[in-house]
Amino acid sequence: MKLNEEQLSFLKNLIEPARIQIRDEIGEDYSHDELGGVYGYPDVLIKVVSTGEISQIMTYAYEQDIPVVVRGAGTGLVGAAVAVRGGIMLETTLMNHILELDEENLTVTVESGVLLMELAQFAEEHQFLYPPDPGEKSATIGGNISTNAGGMRAVKYGVTRDYVRGLTVVLPNGRVERFGGKIVKNSSGYSLKDLMIGSEGTLGIITEAILKLVPLPDKSVSLLVPYKKMEDAIGTVPEIIKLKTTPTAIEFMEREVLLFAEEFLGKKFPDTKSSAYLLLTFDGNSASQVEGEYEKVARYCLEHGAEDVFIVDTPERKDSVWSARGAFLEAIKASTSEMDECDVVVPRNRVADFIHFTHDLSRKHDIRIPSFGHAGDGNLHIYICRDELKENLWKQKLTEVFAEMYEMAMRLGGAVSGEHGVGYAKKKYLEDQLGEVQIEIMRGIKKVFDPKGLLNPEKVI
Amino acid sequence: MKLNEEQLSFLKNLIEPARIQIRDEIGEDYSHDELGGVYGYPDVLIKVVSTGEISQIMTYAYEQDIPVVVRGAGTGLVGAAVAVRGGIMLETTLMNHILELDEENLTVTVESGVLLMELAQFAEEHQFLYPPDPGEKSATIGGNISTNAGGMRAVKYGVTRDYVRGLTVVLPNGRVERFGGKIVKNSSGYSLKDLMIGSEGTLGIITEAILKLVPLPDKSVSLLVPYKKMEDAIGTVPEIIKLKTTPTAIEFMEREVLLFAEEFLGKKFPDTKSSAYLLLTFDGNSASQVEGEYEKVARYCLEHGAEDVFIVDTPERKDSVWSARGAFLEAIKASTSEMDECDVVVPRNRVADFIHFTHDLSRKHDIRIPSFGHAGDGNLHIYICRDELKENLWKQKLTEVFAEMYEMAMRLGGAVSGEHGVGYAKKKYLEDQLGEVQIEIMRGIKKVFDPKGLLNPEKVI
Repeated sequence: MKLNEEQLSFLKNLIEPARIQIRDEIGEDYSHDELGGVYGYPDVLIKVVSTGEISQIMTYAYEQDIPVVVRGAGTGLVGAAVAVRGGIMLETTLMNHILELDEENLTVTVESGVLLMELAQFAEEHQFLYPPDPGEKSATIGGNISTNAGGMRAVKYGVTRDYVRGLTVVLPNGRVERFGGKIVKNSSGYSLKDLMIGSEGTLGIITEAILKLVPLPDKSVSLLVPYKKMEDAIGTVPEIIKLKTTPTAIEFMEREVLLFAEEFLGKKFPDTKSSAYLLLTFDGNSASQVEGEYEKVARYCLEHGAEDVFIVDTPERKDSVWSARGAFLEAIKASTSEMDECDVVVPRNRVADFIHFTHDLSRKHDIRIPSFGHAGDGNLHIYICRDELKENLWKQKLTEVFAEMYEMAMRLGGAVSGEHGVGYAKKKYLEDQLGEVQIEIMRGIKKVFDPKGLLNPEKVI
Repeated sequence: MKLNEEQLSFLKNLIEPARIQIRDEIGEDYSHDELGGVYGYPDVLIKVVSTGEISQIMTYAYEQDIPVVVRGAGTGLVGAAVAVRGGIMLETTLMNHILELDEENLTVTVESGVLLMELAQFAEEHQFLYPPDPGEKSATIGGNISTNAGGMRAVKYGVTRDYVRGLTVVLPNGRVERFGGKIVKNSSGYSLKDLMIGSEGTLGIITEAILKLVPLPDKSVSLLVPYKKMEDAIGTVPEIIKLKTTPTAIEFMEREVLLFAEEFLGKKFPDTKSSAYLLLTFDGNSASQVEGEYEKVARYCLEHGAEDVFIVDTPERKDSVWSARGAFLEAIKASTSEMDECDVVVPRNRVADFIHFTHDLSRKHDIRIPSFGHAGDGNLHIYICRDELKENLWKQKLTEVFAEMYEMAMRLGGAVSGEHGVGYAKKKYLEDQLGEVQIEIMRGIKKVFDPKGLLNPEKVI
């Protein structure tokens, strides 16, 4: 939707010139997200600075029937923060203040534009850990909450949802409401807080969050475990879980992706001789406990097909391993002309089946499908690479491969998205997964919050 | 609502005679819950045995506009499972099967009528822990999920919500849907699973649940710490949290309540000389880690006003302490002619303020207000006792005391209910807390699930 001159001047009067851009002034970056598969320009871009300001804008937009989309750092992969119907884009990165650390309640209160890496560092400096640890550290916390981001530590610590205690939200009509609070328990009506989490900016605008912290574990050690075959590596994971140790993270990675990351970063990975790797982390407050856990797991792996076990405990090795892990997405992107992604989650004991299936698909459709992901929690990041394919053939293969993949994920008891969300790109697959009844319930809920359908239209459902 | 003869014979044809009771056949127990403040008989009581059967009943009830209320073990305290509008009551305690233990995915799948104590025991026998640990062990899991029960271990492990991975739900119109699954992460549309949790049987009927387990910690030790004054005991808790240890539970208890429990159980508590006690638990897989934690805390307590520290590590002592803790509610109930309860939750560092306030209220209104609860997570269980008061005066004092208590809880950043729920008895206070906008959103959500308002009518909102 195009705003008219009256609407534009209302907004220009409300917002200081440095924070508002109109039409051609808006940079190309704002027409897409990190993956770039969904395009669309907003008519107006506003770099918002406060809950009150957002409330004023929403009150007006609601009155005037103007669509609004909220964008954090733009690191999404499914087009959730793209203005597919034009209108107003609210960009939250100036709302980047950490408002309070409450050591008695173990909470930190932040504005939604704070970046994950800023929060992580702040917590560590105060001897706390904010456990959710998605690969993309430059995402905003608001974005993490909106997709219920999971990250690597979900095996032990759970996902973003588990760390959100309270939210300040601007509703589509401009009303400011608080859901939850600093409280640990809550059984006071339907959990609107939990409805907001993972709703990808379609129900309300998250402006502040009260997040739970945990004491920083004293000790953290990783194991890098090479295998001859990916299926063997991943197949070990449910057995590791049955050992009743509690790894913080269990990631899987294949040589191809490691080599891309080496090239992308210009940094060597400790070992790239094997074709598949598990990367496990253990943390805790007692060195003996952490050692006990990782030694038990290392022994098990060596007795069950691992080619070696590298202990990652020096700062250099940790940096080399985790910076590679953090660069996988960018590295794969740099390896091809165009790509699309699949973020399914399956039960942990079906990950090996699923990866095996993607290998078959790759051969069947003659298309490159590198992957990496969270073997410990069943969340896979799978990339379908265009490489040299012509437009038509690429679209056709992508459609076929996606159809088969999402169908297999459902058959294994999985879901469309583990942490990236549904956004614009995965709506069809969500509908296939959930079926008409659940989609209709979700549409009903959307209508309760946003009867005019103005907030992030055409997303999720 | 009274069912007509045609409706009754339909149900009698559907359900075998041993599992259906009509009108006068229904026992007095089914007219109220554990606390007994809310009364009402259903017209028909059906002891249901399967999801399919519930679906059939709901399909018919929906068609015929018959209200339905679901009841588990009837241990609720706010009237949520009382048939205030008559109709059909579905009782779930025959649905008490543990369906699957999946050690690779760390999940257990149960029917909703399984009792908490049955699940806890089953998990332990297989060397797992189901962390949620409400005091009432004979509640059903379905009831626990419906109130998002918290329990004692919430300080370290969180609440029921954090352990529900998937739900099978019969919607008001009879449709069977599955929300979530065995998956650890999920970012696939609005979390209908989290909407069901804590909805007190108003949105759908939970028939099966996939629950998360954790490996059973090898070691668990409690500390019983006596203080001269309750405010000093509770005031220590935020400081203990700041020590960056992670207690599993931090309970507070006062001498009066301990003496009731001793009398009620006919068993001695290890110490009743002091007027206030903290009970802390520490668990973990390494004895040295657990010892390190509790020694640090014991030292801190002794240096900051504790009169002593008793280590509770023998089976006898554990039994004596925890059986007393489990009997508090019954013991207080037995000490008075009638009572009502307040289950507010406040930020952990405001618990001492709140308890101090209840002491003032008790003096001001000349009424006995014993309490106990979860100092570590801010959830208080406060009982207003009628004792010898005449009906009129009791009602008047109760109303005044409640009004002041809930207002204070809000002022401290708290909520109406930490874990017992809103049900029928606390609706007014929920409305006061949340305000019109949030209540209207909740009513809208209710309508999406249950347009005819037939499932557990007049509850929560």
